[in-house]
Amino acid sequence: MKVILLNGPNLNLLNSRNKEMYGNFDLKKIINLITSNFPKITFDFFQSNSENELVVKIQHAPQFYDGLIINPGGLSHSSISLRDALELCRIPKVEVHLSNISSREDFRKISITASVCDGYISGFKHISYLAAFYTISQLISEKALSNRN
Amino acid sequence: MKVILLNGPNLNLLNSRNKEMYGNFDLKKIINLITSNFPKITFDFFQSNSENELVVKIQHAPQFYDGLIINPGGLSHSSISLRDALELCRIPKVEVHLSNISSREDFRKISITASVCDGYISGFKHISYLAAFYTISQLISEKALSNRN
Amino acid sequence: MKVILLNGPNLNLLNSRNKEMYGNFDLKKIINLITSNFPKITFDFFQSNSENELVVKIQHAPQFYDGLIINPGGLSHSSISLRDALELCRIPKVEVHLSNISSREDFRKISITASVCDGYISGFKHISYLAAFYTISQLISEKALSNRN
Amino acid sequence: MKVILLNGPNLNLLNSRNKEMYGNFDLKKIINLITSNFPKITFDFFQSNSENELVVKIQHAPQFYDGLIINPGGLSHSSISLRDALELCRIPKVEVHLSNISSREDFRKISITASVCDGYISGFKHISYLAAFYTISQLISEKALSNRN
Amino acid sequence: MKVILLNGPNLNLLNSRNKEMYGNFDLKKIINLITSNFPKITFDFFQSNSENELVVKIQHAPQFYDGLIINPGGLSHSSISLRDALELCRIPKVEVHLSNISSREDFRKISITASVCDGYISGFKHISYLAAFYTISQLISEKALSNRN
Amino acid sequence: MKVILLNGPNLNLLNSRNKEMYGNFDLKKIINLITSNFPKITFDFFQSNSENELVVKIQHAPQFYDGLIINPGGLSHSSISLRDALELCRIPKVEVHLSNISSREDFRKISITASVCDGYISGFKHISYLAAFYTISQLISEKALSNRN
Amino acid sequence: MKVILLNGPNLNLLNSRNKEMYGNFDLKKIINLITSNFPKITFDFFQSNSENELVVKIQHAPQFYDGLIINPGGLSHSSISLRDALELCRIPKVEVHLSNISSREDFRKISITASVCDGYISGFKHISYLAAFYTISQLISEKALSNRN
Amino acid sequence: MKVILLNGPNLNLLNSRNKEMYGNFDLKKIINLITSNFPKITFDFFQSNSENELVVKIQHAPQFYDGLIINPGGLSHSSISLRDALELCRIPKVEVHLSNISSREDFRKISITASVCDGYISGFKHISYLAAFYTISQLISEKALSNRN
Amino acid sequence: MKVILLNGPNLNLLNSRNKEMYGNFDLKKIINLITSNFPKITFDFFQSNSENELVVKIQHAPQFYDGLIINPGGLSHSSISLRDALELCRIPKVEVHLSNISSREDFRKISITASVCDGYISGFKHISYLAAFYTISQLISEKALSNRN
Amino acid sequence: MKVILLNGPNLNLLNSRNKEMYGNFDLKKIINLITSNFPKITFDFFQSNSENELVVKIQHAPQFYDGLIINPGGLSHSSISLRDALELCRIPKVEVHLSNISSREDFRKISITASVCDGYISGFKHISYLAAFYTISQLISEKALSNRN
Amino acid sequence: MKVILLNGPNLNLLNSRNKEMYGNFDLKKIINLITSNFPKITFDFFQSNSENELVVKIQHAPQFYDGLIINPGGLSHSSISLRDALELCRIPKVEVHLSNISSREDFRKISITASVCDGYISGFKHISYLAAFYTISQLISEKALSNRN
Amino acid sequence: MKVILLNGPNLNLLNSRNKEMYGNFDLKKIINLITSNFPKITFDFFQSNSENELVVKIQHAPQFYDGLIINPGGLSHSSISLRDALELCRIPKVEVHLSNISSREDFRKISITASVCDGYISGFKHISYLAAFYTISQLISEKALSNRN
Repeated sequence: MKVILLNGPNLNLLNSRNKEMYGNFDLKKIINLITSNFPKITFDFFQSNSENELVVKIQHAPQFYDGLIINPGGLSHSSISLRDALELCRIPKVEVHLSNISSREDFRKISITASVCDGYISGFKHISYLAAFYTISQLISEKALSNRN
Repeated sequence: MKVILLNGPNLNLLNSRNKEMYGNFDLKKIINLITSNFPKITFDFFQSNSENELVVKIQHAPQFYDGLIINPGGLSHSSISLRDALELCRIPKVEVHLSNISSREDFRKISITASVCDGYISGFKHISYLAAFYTISQLISEKALSNRN
Repeated sequence: MKVILLNGPNLNLLNSRNKEMYGNFDLKKIINLITSNFPKITFDFFQSNSENELVVKIQHAPQFYDGLIINPGGLSHSSISLRDALELCRIPKVEVHLSNISSREDFRKISITASVCDGYISGFKHISYLAAFYTISQLISEKALSNRN
Repeated sequence: MKVILLNGPNLNLLNSRNKEMYGNFDLKKIINLITSNFPKITFDFFQSNSENELVVKIQHAPQFYDGLIINPGGLSHSSISLRDALELCRIPKVEVHLSNISSREDFRKISITASVCDGYISGFKHISYLAAFYTISQLISEKALSNRN
Repeated sequence: MKVILLNGPNLNLLNSRNKEMYGNFDLKKIINLITSNFPKITFDFFQSNSENELVVKIQHAPQFYDGLIINPGGLSHSSISLRDALELCRIPKVEVHLSNISSREDFRKISITASVCDGYISGFKHISYLAAFYTISQLISEKALSNRN
Repeated sequence: MKVILLNGPNLNLLNSRNKEMYGNFDLKKIINLITSNFPKITFDFFQSNSENELVVKIQHAPQFYDGLIINPGGLSHSSISLRDALELCRIPKVEVHLSNISSREDFRKISITASVCDGYISGFKHISYLAAFYTISQLISEKALSNRN
Repeated sequence: MKVILLNGPNLNLLNSRNKEMYGNFDLKKIINLITSNFPKITFDFFQSNSENELVVKIQHAPQFYDGLIINPGGLSHSSISLRDALELCRIPKVEVHLSNISSREDFRKISITASVCDGYISGFKHISYLAAFYTISQLISEKALSNRN
Repeated sequence: MKVILLNGPNLNLLNSRNKEMYGNFDLKKIINLITSNFPKITFDFFQSNSENELVVKIQHAPQFYDGLIINPGGLSHSSISLRDALELCRIPKVEVHLSNISSREDFRKISITASVCDGYISGFKHISYLAAFYTISQLISEKALSNRN
Repeated sequence: MKVILLNGPNLNLLNSRNKEMYGNFDLKKIINLITSNFPKITFDFFQSNSENELVVKIQHAPQFYDGLIINPGGLSHSSISLRDALELCRIPKVEVHLSNISSREDFRKISITASVCDGYISGFKHISYLAAFYTISQLISEKALSNRN
Repeated sequence: MKVILLNGPNLNLLNSRNKEMYGNFDLKKIINLITSNFPKITFDFFQSNSENELVVKIQHAPQFYDGLIINPGGLSHSSISLRDALELCRIPKVEVHLSNISSREDFRKISITASVCDGYISGFKHISYLAAFYTISQLISEKALSNRN
Repeated sequence: MKVILLNGPNLNLLNSRNKEMYGNFDLKKIINLITSNFPKITFDFFQSNSENELVVKIQHAPQFYDGLIINPGGLSHSSISLRDALELCRIPKVEVHLSNISSREDFRKISITASVCDGYISGFKHISYLAAFYTISQLISEKALSNRN
Repeated sequence: MKVILLNGPNLNLLNSRNKEMYGNFDLKKIINLITSNFPKITFDFFQSNSENELVVKIQHAPQFYDGLIINPGGLSHSSISLRDALELCRIPKVEVHLSNISSREDFRKISITASVCDGYISGFKHISYLAAFYTISQLISEKALSNRN
């Protein structure tokens, strides 16, 4: 089972962000946690501040991966290009947010990219990422099962 | 680890609802799946069409449970009473939706109850419930850990 | 032909309400009128101030009735739970209002429950109820006819 | 008892419209149904695509008719002229729509003409017309009764 | 002079709520204060999380009480049923809020129930309740006076 | 205990205003009532049609008074200057309205000055003023008490 | 000096309209008043319920008249066609309303046709028409003067 | 016949304002024009940049004048105090604007003061003032006539 | 190949309109251009200021023409009747505007009629018409081709 | 005659997009069609998912091309940078959309980039591109003509 | 070089305002700083809580000063009178705010007065004033230079 | 003292932009002016049309510079990514605009990036840049001073 984990703008700087809102996010620790908790999943990690590069990764994802997890950061609320790319990408897709977007500024309350993913998970800080991996593995397994029938 | 799973109005009728939107939700199967996947969690299941009964359950939850999972159904978008009850309830809380609320009618796009939970999970049909149990167990474990320190 | 007539909050107090807006509604007289005008229809009358009880009645209606008439009162404009219950209820459904909701306060102009009924009738005071019975009997007859073919 | 039935723009083309939304509307059949169901009502049928002609018919209606039934079509949502004409017309008035306007596009959800009629009936396809005739006959009878006293 | 004091959802939990916003509300102390400050008023205290039960209490109030004080909690901003019940209730009515609703979230800024009471008092924490009793006693006395003339 | 009672634009003309909305406000009578009901309070009465003069009075109030009562009239809904002055004024503050602002024109429904007072009282006609004096005396006493501790 | 006075939909029925809002409008009397008060103005009177006919009259007006007075009735608020026709018509133009549109329903508060006339006069009942004739004669005289120079 | 002509903020500087929008307004010339055109009217001219002074003038107007003409300038769109003062002033009132407010910035399109005057005249530059005097004299005469009967 | 070219209100006056916005539109020249550039297309030209007449032409178009081009003028933004007529008309349809509606007043930015045509062309002045004929010929050819297969 | 054809994000994936909305777009076929239909036009084709690269291409276009055709995809509705670049680019510009944007989601109904192009063409699937080339060639020819005079 | 520095309502109380938002504003210190940093500028300082007095100062400024700096306080967001006065004042004008208005309450985000100044400076606390003096001196010098040429 | 000056999309083309709005911006001249006026500041100049590159520059700025000046161009109004990057960047930050954004199109009136800078300067054309350098040097000096204490 092969998954790509995409992170959008400014998520390379998580350590310096507001701890109360985003939690005590230690990238290495979270990658270790994912690796130990989901040993059956091989995953690639990609972060970019560029909408363009994220769009390209999404366009190519179905060739290389069984599922896609994305934290689009600020692009969730404004990028129609990202939304269009995700809509065209026909593999299981989970959107994930560290903070609870329903309790933040009005312009962050609605995600236009989430509406073209299978679903989304928001607010559990680093646990959001674990839940996303848990969910994508379930979605992929179920799809495999239904394809076999 | 003891958890309560609350379901709001009309969720007793899931079988007859739109399959494409809500998935092929078979209550017994999902309860079996939860039981087998999360053997360390004891959980109570409660469904009610009454806002009042849900408010009361939430008010009493901290006395009896380590965590709370709620699918408030249509009340997510209109019940300030439910929101106030959840805000006062100081245990880990996960809101869950079978359908992807960000891709439905405008009046379902914003959940006013989700903003006072730790976070929410939306759109993965029956897998939403599994992800919610996965998440609540992580939240409870982490809280236990931080309390011990 | 068996029909249930549901009345929402405060409709038990109709006599004391604004006569100009709601007409001179005398419950016994209107029940007598229905009985004499629609002798072929057996109907149950149920009024409740509780959203919960109305939801439950709607959920069970298809087992016992051929059609449903509902005056949701103030719940027409805010209850997503009632809307969801009506949407799941697959028998002919008529929403009815004594007053003309299109000429009242802005928050009463749009009924979110009417949109999931077959249609609605608004403004004719007690005659609204007679028209609702006339309509439901036509809808049931037609459905019976088309089922036979 | 003499009634005029007015139909606004495009209602001359009903047969070619969306069957699911408007029903299988066969003008001759519906006129026959009305005639047989309401033998005591004499009625004139008038359809026009012209706001002007409808306004004139409404202005003259009280001289010739005891009641007025109107399906203003698309003019329901935009014609202040039609609204003003109806407001000035002091005989029983019923607005009728084949489709359920509360479940259609936003710009069709509010009828500015309905608010100056006694009430309106929406969504029952050809049965809407029968219910309108049923209602207008009740309104006229009641008015006659109250005038006599 | 007999008064009913109604409290809506979650007001049974006041002690655990945000002290800065709601003040140090000790129910027994406030009831004692009312009793000692307003010895001429006999009052019944009723709290419910159920919109239904509050509607029923309001409907019956005029039979048993000279005046009504209500803190509808979160229902102030959304319950048309409560509003309709209050509008039909023809005794002096005072709405009361512990917190200053004009300085809270946007969805709490407008009370649709206050507009059908004589008036409302908001923001003085436990003193709001004392002011409400002061006001209702003035309203009842004045009404008695004007009835006598 | 020393209090200032400020009245904004047009409140010098109360006698000629709409009786149904504002009550039978007789300034001398109300001042007598306050004097006799609250003998322990010394108060100054100041009315002005000038935003400027009201701002100045508010700025100086903490030097001379223990509490402030204000009926800002039409300025409640538009004067940011008055709001800023009130926000800077650190003594107990009560906003008062004769009419029930929640039931008037939309532009009067939200008071931007009330949100920086302790709270507000609206709708009880001349009794609003009595309730404001009752409330301010409670607020001042309580503050004195907490300062002593 | 030659002027055309255009009246839009339903203004042929003024006598039966709401007297308080539109005044005691007696067409013959007003025409007599205009004739006696403005003996130097020759004017044609034209009323139509048809947007089309009004557009045509406006298109031809500059060939036959020195000025145009129009009461577009309900079309003021919705007819872009009338607005476009008026904008293209390069003679002095006065819009007139019997009622005060700034104090009526929201949808009547803004006139999209007035913005392309020289100006408008609203609210003085039959005196609005006299003021319009007074104004158009001033506008025409001034234009003549400035053309001569 | 005695009339007061009030001018609001910045109308003392008309000569320096935009000529295309406000016309070639020469105060002396317009006063001469009024004097020569309306010899039967005695009028006082008052300009102030102070809302306060305008409110006071309006409050006292009924004692000294038969009618009031006001150009509130920018206050038309924001001053609720001015609106309240005008509403309380029970003599004929005409609001006047030099520019056509329906064709300017959105925040100038609606006048909240005009809605409590008899009516308003907007857009005819200096002729607006003449038309206002013409109108007020008609209103006063008519009122005198109806008082005599 | 037979096409009808419909033009809405005021398009008979194009020569006198704003040249910068609409271009130097010379009707004869444009008809000559169309004739010479599209010799294989026979077309009828129809202009009307009447919504009614346009609706009728559209209703009959499928009987006589292979395609329809329409410039609805101001009706694009408000006429639901025109929209309904176009929606029912099942031949290739192109909406065309001389000016670029996306850069004009807000009320002209959205065309409700364009949404039920195949598409629309806006902003190229007289070239818009040529492009519309180019497009309709392509649409008709393609439809013919696909019908043949 | 030299033209650049720019395509924005995700237009490299057209084949996999929704056929009903975007048509059966075969890039090679459409390029062949353009080449054969417009032999006098030399054109460059450029697609990018990067706003940055598109901005740069537009900035340089006037140096190398006589005209520009752009399908900005999702950027039409949100990119102010693209809009600013287009506004500064002084050669004939045509915006083109495969789908009919006036009939899609609300956030796609208004194009902020189209308002700074000469005009736009929307909804004709691959024929939109042909029409764009037809139009640009007309615009360039006309400009050349007017430059020569 | 002579400049006037105007300060609006409540800016006389800066010392008592929120330090975090407005900085540690010590009026004497800031005046000393301005004097020492800008020795070539003579300036008058004027603060008023009265819109009227500010309007008058602005109207007279061009006679006495080369430039104007204004901090309108709360009037920035509501006073059309101040805006009109500033628009008519043809000398260099700089608006200044101590706090960053783009990060405060919604009703403070847009300044209607700034739009008629040359520009505005917001958020740098006392440094905002220094930057305003720096800017006004540059604007005046440049204007002098361009006048000389 | 080391500062970075960032310029967003299209600011490389300033010379060709609207002179009235942006002034006669000559990049070399402005850089010379900055150099001669602020000899103590070393600054790097960076312009990019790419949101991505700007985000990266901002992320790295605190390592290399004492302060940051940014003119985000069109990205001010839409880029949440840029806003997030700026919020995380803890050095003095000044946003600058050549044109007065409060007097331009509505979509340019609010800057979402300015709200996370110390403040912003808008409207003074090339002088905006000088004022920004003046301000940043003050901010850096003051910070250094407060760090030393």
